[in-house]
Amino acid sequence: MVKLYIFYQLVPYFTAQRAVLHHILIHFTAQRAVLHHILIHFAAQRAVLLNANILKFCSKCGHEVTLKPVPDDHRPRYVCDNCETIHYQNPNIVTGALPIWEDKVMLCKRGIEPRKGYWNVPGGYMENGETVEAGAIREVYEETLSKITITSLHMVYSIPRINQVYMHFLADLQALDYQLTPESTEIKLFTEEEIPWDDIAFPSSKFTLKRYFEDRKKGIRQVHLGKFEW
Amino acid sequence: MVKLYIFYQLVPYFTAQRAVLHHILIHFTAQRAVLHHILIHFAAQRAVLLNANILKFCSKCGHEVTLKPVPDDHRPRYVCDNCETIHYQNPNIVTGALPIWEDKVMLCKRGIEPRKGYWNVPGGYMENGETVEAGAIREVYEETLSKITITSLHMVYSIPRINQVYMHFLADLQALDYQLTPESTEIKLFTEEEIPWDDIAFPSSKFTLKRYFEDRKKGIRQVHLGKFEW
Repeated sequence: MVKLYIFYQLVPYFTAQRAVLHHILIHFTAQRAVLHHILIHFAAQRAVLLNANILKFCSKCGHEVTLKPVPDDHRPRYVCDNCETIHYQNPNIVTGALPIWEDKVMLCKRGIEPRKGYWNVPGGYMENGETVEAGAIREVYEETLSKITITSLHMVYSIPRINQVYMHFLADLQALDYQLTPESTEIKLFTEEEIPWDDIAFPSSKFTLKRYFEDRKKGIRQVHLGKFEW
Repeated sequence: MVKLYIFYQLVPYFTAQRAVLHHILIHFTAQRAVLHHILIHFAAQRAVLLNANILKFCSKCGHEVTLKPVPDDHRPRYVCDNCETIHYQNPNIVTGALPIWEDKVMLCKRGIEPRKGYWNVPGGYMENGETVEAGAIREVYEETLSKITITSLHMVYSIPRINQVYMHFLADLQALDYQLTPESTEIKLFTEEEIPWDDIAFPSSKFTLKRYFEDRKKGIRQVHLGKFEW
């Protein structure tokens, strides 16, 4: 194609040869444009299929839904064949906090799947009707029955493949008062040297711990942006 | 109740009077506990109803769903009467960026409802399969066709009543190159003095602008946590 285009450039204007080449090139360019659009279409569909729950029925009227393009939108959506409701799907926030007590941080051994038995920064899905901070306080309480005071935002960490955004805060433990819960089979305060690095449940927690100890050495606090892709 | 309890404390141990008072107090305490649980139940239901879309049918199998308590969960969920799928509902992220060019910031006049005709920091719902940062870059491009380089996270702003979390970044405009789009009927660069404060679309944008100019005067950059409740 490129060679043909270079050759075409060399052919003198207003000749039959050039006119023929011109038509051939336009033909290929148009084909390429069409192909390009088809690929974009499939890429968008693949993105939606990879990154969304598959919906079959409309939650409003119960009729079947179809994944299809929507006017003025950049990606296909599930649309109800009957009432035309568009069912958007968006990432979820996992909110949590690293409870701090003197030179130690609190981790919980997960009592539930996924990653049961691994150590984690307490956190969970943010709920409707709460702020990110309130969600973090609630999650820490649910997992450890301990009360915290949030002192700063520590990280925002995206995991595009599974549509999650982690937000971890740094927090002071209000008292050395915590209890096991169905969500945590063990709760422990760790110094930096004691952190069980090989048994940390999720990359987001490793990210939070590493950055926290680095910052502490430098005597600073900052918000870290991160992501996990594979 | 409190007076009765104080009186009970004053009655000598092992007397008939004390035993009767003891039974009366236990009775009231139990009633109160039951009442408390009923109130919590209604409060949770109210929270869900206020803060969630009403679901009627299961998106997986099409059968009806019921809002009901779920084991080991702190709030009722919509559960399918047939396949028992639990339909969680969680807050959405609105990601955006304040594009900066020298001493000016870029705002867009909204071309679509809500708040059509008002000025806004470009942004929109984060999509599945992207990072928060990528979402902000995409939204700015969709609204203005301009390219930005994100320089820092500026704010995280919860609006619990409508289940939204705004995340705004500060960003450098890569070139003085932008165009109107269906989403923006006007795009303009403003100095601080030129900001149309009375015509800003949303409290989140006002929050971002105010904090940006305050920080700029102090010569610092920081992440601001905020919320809007009414």
